[in-house]
Amino acid sequence: MTVARPYSDTIWDEVETWSRDRIESFQLSALRRQLADVGKRSRHYARVFRETGFEPGDFRSLDDLSALPLTRKQDYVAGLAEEPPFGSLAAVDLKDAARVHFSSGTTARPAPVLWTKPDLDRWADVYARYLYAQGLRRGDVFQCMFNYAWFVGGLGATYGAERVGALVIPGSSGDTRRQIETIQQYGTKVVIGTPSFMAHLAETAEEMGFDLPSSTVEMVCVGGEPGASIPGTRERIERQWGAKMFDCYGALECQPIGWDTALQLGPQLAEDYIHTEILDPDTLKTVEDGQRGVLVLTHLDKQACPLVRWWTGDVVVRDRAGTPDGRTHARLVGGVLGRADDMLIIRGVNLFPTAVEDIVRAFPGTTNEYVLVIDDSVKDAKTGFLTGVKLRVERTDDAPADLEYALTARLREKLSVRFHVEVLPAGTLPRTVHKAKRVIQE
Amino acid sequence: MTVARPYSDTIWDEVETWSRDRIESFQLSALRRQLADVGKRSRHYARVFRETGFEPGDFRSLDDLSALPLTRKQDYVAGLAEEPPFGSLAAVDLKDAARVHFSSGTTARPAPVLWTKPDLDRWADVYARYLYAQGLRRGDVFQCMFNYAWFVGGLGATYGAERVGALVIPGSSGDTRRQIETIQQYGTKVVIGTPSFMAHLAETAEEMGFDLPSSTVEMVCVGGEPGASIPGTRERIERQWGAKMFDCYGALECQPIGWDTALQLGPQLAEDYIHTEILDPDTLKTVEDGQRGVLVLTHLDKQACPLVRWWTGDVVVRDRAGTPDGRTHARLVGGVLGRADDMLIIRGVNLFPTAVEDIVRAFPGTTNEYVLVIDDSVKDAKTGFLTGVKLRVERTDDAPADLEYALTARLREKLSVRFHVEVLPAGTLPRTVHKAKRVIQE
Repeated sequence: MTVARPYSDTIWDEVETWSRDRIESFQLSALRRQLADVGKRSRHYARVFRETGFEPGDFRSLDDLSALPLTRKQDYVAGLAEEPPFGSLAAVDLKDAARVHFSSGTTARPAPVLWTKPDLDRWADVYARYLYAQGLRRGDVFQCMFNYAWFVGGLGATYGAERVGALVIPGSSGDTRRQIETIQQYGTKVVIGTPSFMAHLAETAEEMGFDLPSSTVEMVCVGGEPGASIPGTRERIERQWGAKMFDCYGALECQPIGWDTALQLGPQLAEDYIHTEILDPDTLKTVEDGQRGVLVLTHLDKQACPLVRWWTGDVVVRDRAGTPDGRTHARLVGGVLGRADDMLIIRGVNLFPTAVEDIVRAFPGTTNEYVLVIDDSVKDAKTGFLTGVKLRVERTDDAPADLEYALTARLREKLSVRFHVEVLPAGTLPRTVHKAKRVIQE
Repeated sequence: MTVARPYSDTIWDEVETWSRDRIESFQLSALRRQLADVGKRSRHYARVFRETGFEPGDFRSLDDLSALPLTRKQDYVAGLAEEPPFGSLAAVDLKDAARVHFSSGTTARPAPVLWTKPDLDRWADVYARYLYAQGLRRGDVFQCMFNYAWFVGGLGATYGAERVGALVIPGSSGDTRRQIETIQQYGTKVVIGTPSFMAHLAETAEEMGFDLPSSTVEMVCVGGEPGASIPGTRERIERQWGAKMFDCYGALECQPIGWDTALQLGPQLAEDYIHTEILDPDTLKTVEDGQRGVLVLTHLDKQACPLVRWWTGDVVVRDRAGTPDGRTHARLVGGVLGRADDMLIIRGVNLFPTAVEDIVRAFPGTTNEYVLVIDDSVKDAKTGFLTGVKLRVERTDDAPADLEYALTARLREKLSVRFHVEVLPAGTLPRTVHKAKRVIQE
């Protein structure tokens, strides 16, 4: 690297402090170069540009992006079928491809996404930027409990923490008891993994009689599944671990997207790495900062699998006012607020599972686990529209006797939806170490 | 990197072609620097040097090494107890430590071994050298089926293959069917993993009706457990995969040690990376090249956990005559021939489990699996000395009716030991995906 890292005691890269003007002029020139490249190297985008009459050379303003169609997951999947195995969106000669990771979706065939060596280098540097912003420092013991097989998180976090100069323990996402023993024995300061696995570890530590809050762990970094930004989850994990929890938001296709900094003000983006738009899910028009909308991403320099106007499906609120630590890049206030496509519509109310999670996790007498169930009993017999939703939770030993009643009332009050709450004994619902499925059809 | 890689169409690093004189003068100056460093930074070695009156400054000839005591596994373990958690052999300030991996021994607490960033860089370069020597090239699809959790193989192979410029699929050591589907779908050319897992994958491919020998796989690189060098194992894996098998010999403490090149003449060492001695296990005197002895290693530049005269316990035969491909570094003829400490002594005969494996795997009608069993029935009632050994194997569907008799006779003839062979149905013995245990006490 030719650039000095870290830039300061709290900031990894000078770019994090750029003025809005400088960010935007950088994005404009980066997009000009990137779109010209993508139009040449990706057969999918070459066709899209041709069909829409888009000329990368005519790209004059960031608003010109809106002339291009959105790229959705189904476009990616169609591209894979069109040009197996890596797809027509890929923009790389295989001799330059260095890594492939896969989607962990269980509903479809795992989709591959490629990286070149410069992509991996860039990826590691942004990971390092984010980990540094959360508080990771040279010499800190960093226990990586993201899975390394197929999944993007294990190697990403390892490369990033290594670049910061931390001591990486590659624990991966199994061996629960051994993870706890390792924390104890090696003085781990930072752990990273899915929120489900972090909750599972906390339960295991308790079973083992290990007092996690008094351990050396100061930072719990979570990502890889929705829910990290939910206050209920955050409060519970922070209490169980006696440590600060940081939301690490990313996706296979765009990795990482944005992470909490030490200020925990919501995931901070890297606007020199990705360009963002926030769109109304119905009109697909830009919404103002401060309004809810779907996050749409465009890579500024990804070589192997560049995405242009990638529809994340994640509902967010953007803020570009900067933060008190001198960082100027946009952040997502409150993190990911829901999935545009997981949203349930119940008697006209938009219900995100994450909103339910928020309430359940903060509610006394429940464990970490819950699942929303859709079956015929909550559908209108004629129209099939939802009239309510079933919610299964687990009671703890010290749960109040009226848990079912009290939780139903709270949910109704907060969310204006009718819930059929089923309270089960602790340990009944399935635990996932990787990605939890929160809505099931029965 | 300032040095050009690769050096030629077949050789990664010019150093592989150095003359014997140049290798030895390099080793001498490297050892002078290394031992001075180790004596300053490792408390264990500082004490050893003091107690033996060894002055790194007086180090004049490679033979001077023999003034120092051997370092054995028990010294490492004692060092861990003395200075937890990383031990008194470690020679690194924790702020410079970048990685820890762990021993996978199931009998003792996992022992940690550290790397600095320069160690990781050096490690990746030697891995790249070895993979290149086997035939891995830029753009080749490389499916890494070593485990990434705790173990040293997954990340090591990933970093090395990435440096060569291959496309790495991080599959890790589970998901057997998915590994086969991935080979099929992505045109994998090179696979790496333990010999047990490679055998297991071959069985799975057959169950799936996938014709592995006609697949894109050309190279099967195996390591992480003994047996890779055994002709019976090699022949079977090469037949099952329709590909060349390469022995990748390493250990957590010294990683990698030596790997087969494309010529398959036995693991080639990197003598600019480690210094080797071959010692008689009883007298601890140097044996001549061509004679069996135990491999003893000294790191020439490892920073974090440097080892001086490390007793591998592995019985080898060294050859320093060079190979027809222009490589000049020593190789281990036939690979690891056995373990000095796993050796069973049966009525005066030294029996290595690997010698049994060699015969079993080449014997028609048996599967890949076997286990040696020691119980009272094979011990002299008075002295407790072994009079023979039990061997459990599995029969295939087309096994001859006299398998037990024929195998017993063959073993007796080849090894001069009395075997009690028990033939079990296929699938009865436990399969391991990681490291197989070949001798059990009952």
